[in-house]
Amino acid sequence: MTGPIDPVALAADLIRCASVTPADAGAQDVLTAALEAQGFTVHRFTSGEAPHGPVENMIAIRGQGAPHFAFAGHSDVVPAGQGWTAGAFEPEIRGDLLYGRGAVDMKGAIAAFIAATERVQDHAGTLSLLITGDEEGPALYGTRAIIDWLDARGIRPDMVLVGEPTSDKRLGDTIKIGRRGSINAWITVPGTQGHVAYPHLADNPVARLVRILDRLQRWHLDDGNAWFQPSNLEITDIEVASGATNIIPGSAGARLNIRFNDVQQGAALEAEIRRIVAEEAPRGTVEALISGEAFLTAPGALSSLMSDAIRGVTGVDAEYSTTGGTSDARFLSQIAPTVEFGLCNATMHKLDEAVAVEDLRVLADIYEAVLRKALRP
Amino acid sequence: MTGPIDPVALAADLIRCASVTPADAGAQDVLTAALEAQGFTVHRFTSGEAPHGPVENMIAIRGQGAPHFAFAGHSDVVPAGQGWTAGAFEPEIRGDLLYGRGAVDMKGAIAAFIAATERVQDHAGTLSLLITGDEEGPALYGTRAIIDWLDARGIRPDMVLVGEPTSDKRLGDTIKIGRRGSINAWITVPGTQGHVAYPHLADNPVARLVRILDRLQRWHLDDGNAWFQPSNLEITDIEVASGATNIIPGSAGARLNIRFNDVQQGAALEAEIRRIVAEEAPRGTVEALISGEAFLTAPGALSSLMSDAIRGVTGVDAEYSTTGGTSDARFLSQIAPTVEFGLCNATMHKLDEAVAVEDLRVLADIYEAVLRKALRP
Ligand SMILES: [Zn+2]
Ligand SMILES: [Zn+2]
Repeated sequence: MTGPIDPVALAADLIRCASVTPADAGAQDVLTAALEAQGFTVHRFTSGEAPHGPVENMIAIRGQGAPHFAFAGHSDVVPAGQGWTAGAFEPEIRGDLLYGRGAVDMKGAIAAFIAATERVQDHAGTLSLLITGDEEGPALYGTRAIIDWLDARGIRPDMVLVGEPTSDKRLGDTIKIGRRGSINAWITVPGTQGHVAYPHLADNPVARLVRILDRLQRWHLDDGNAWFQPSNLEITDIEVASGATNIIPGSAGARLNIRFNDVQQGAALEAEIRRIVAEEAPRGTVEALISGEAFLTAPGALSSLMSDAIRGVTGVDAEYSTTGGTSDARFLSQIAPTVEFGLCNATMHKLDEAVAVEDLRVLADIYEAVLRKALRP
Repeated sequence: MTGPIDPVALAADLIRCASVTPADAGAQDVLTAALEAQGFTVHRFTSGEAPHGPVENMIAIRGQGAPHFAFAGHSDVVPAGQGWTAGAFEPEIRGDLLYGRGAVDMKGAIAAFIAATERVQDHAGTLSLLITGDEEGPALYGTRAIIDWLDARGIRPDMVLVGEPTSDKRLGDTIKIGRRGSINAWITVPGTQGHVAYPHLADNPVARLVRILDRLQRWHLDDGNAWFQPSNLEITDIEVASGATNIIPGSAGARLNIRFNDVQQGAALEAEIRRIVAEEAPRGTVEALISGEAFLTAPGALSSLMSDAIRGVTGVDAEYSTTGGTSDARFLSQIAPTVEFGLCNATMHKLDEAVAVEDLRVLADIYEAVLRKALRP
């Protein structure tokens, strides 16, 4: 490698690998080469089985001892979808933008971080990159497996920065210091089919389901707190096993999702759903999946370090946020203070995903400033 | 024709015509021949256009002046469906039963009535049969057209007997003296699609729909009265335009049916549905179809005459009922006192529809007794 790393060129090299989750398509080879050239020791392993695996994971480590600063990210991307102006895996600069699947989520951020680590060779303590190929899928064999790998070796970071695209209107405006938890539930209410003219011979499951859903909707979860919005429940689907116009159906079901803050526990929410269903429909059933508990890294040293670096490079005052979907930060926050900061998310998961070339260079500068503060020699 | 009409043979002749609504398949030719042989004048006309027409209608009249006793019925049947033991349109006696589509609803009853009219040649006043081929379909071109035909000629019956299968456990146990009305409504609630993580950017139509349906379910319509059950509302279908698991859908809809008694008016029920929808979902829409208002022929001369005839022939005390689905009696009751009485309804509209051979003969005797009382010379 000659000359300093260009984060735009490295991002393009990564986009060229069609690493649609859980495929790797050479992406981690690109990362390994760039990191080994800077003196990182790279550990790679696969985890899991079909259909959601095997997954490629990698851990790159440089230096030793405390403090340990870890950058966490994913080399997989969501499917391209139909309708791109150019190829989703053929990176192309048009105007000020670099186009390609993963440009902002999050190959661009990984490239920026690797550009930054190249400039900060003389750091104290330990610097690591925790990169998985299973973040956009079910996340069963990715970051969980990496945490197990670290645990088995007695390695525990002191600070974790997840490179998700957290910026909203402009680069640097938002740092995520927590995320809400999420629970999905599928309620099924069996009934007895019949004709509307003879309702006493039938048991209308829709009647019971509507009462359940009305109670769930009226359920006041909480008022939120200093760092979180109120928890929120949305009914996303209803299905009725319907025959003809005047037939009372034989069964009905509904799907709902709750995004909940750190006042709540997923298991308690699930129990309350089950209680309401049992009261209104003794034969009803509930399937629930808690995809993550809420977490918060209370504002402190790590978030201040991040916002100072952002302000120093861009002049922007970052806002602390806990909104949005789930990310692997829900796992990492269990082992160390964790914040998320990265590119603007306007095009993530969309057609013609693109990043401003200038943002890639500025993000590398911000990450460099973060490293100089976090691992000051 | 030699010898008296056998209602079993005539019913079989009618079943042999595959008159699946709105087809006639020769059924009214069979009726015409039998009635003209007894001195009836038969008027036939078609009404309506595809897809629900043309429909064959016939009016057979014998005698003149008051009183005018009319028997109303339909020569069409519902589709056979798959899975009959023998052919649905190949009448067959096995054991005590005559099998075939229409055996009870209501070719058997028409055959029994024609056997009765043959035995009561010396009646007073006017005897008529009003037979349509559009009762099991949308009933747009059937009994309504027959009523128009009578109106145009200044003919108005004084009593109407509809030959629907009203008997429940045994022949003669139930006379219908009224029917509930029926309204179907389809509610559509538009929303704004979005992700469950960002509910403030979306407008969940399911939330509004559940509130609407809960209010509709809690709506206390009435307590019924001496002759009617309480009016009843059933939600029969819900459809949600759903994307993926965590997507707030873009629209939602529900279908409901109200069976209502003579305390209610269809238009007032529709207005109340519209009011509730407008309050909970200003952009919501309602499509409503009132397929019939409730009607009652208060117990009196006609129902007494029927129950006396039934008791005289069978010893059974008939019960007056207003339950069950809709029938063409809803139209006929607007021009004359109307009751419904016919065979046992256990197999109507089902596979292997069948009538007890003995019931056909007893029903002919009951109808004969009715005619002798109603049109006593
Ligand atoms: Zn991501
Ligand atoms: Zn019928």
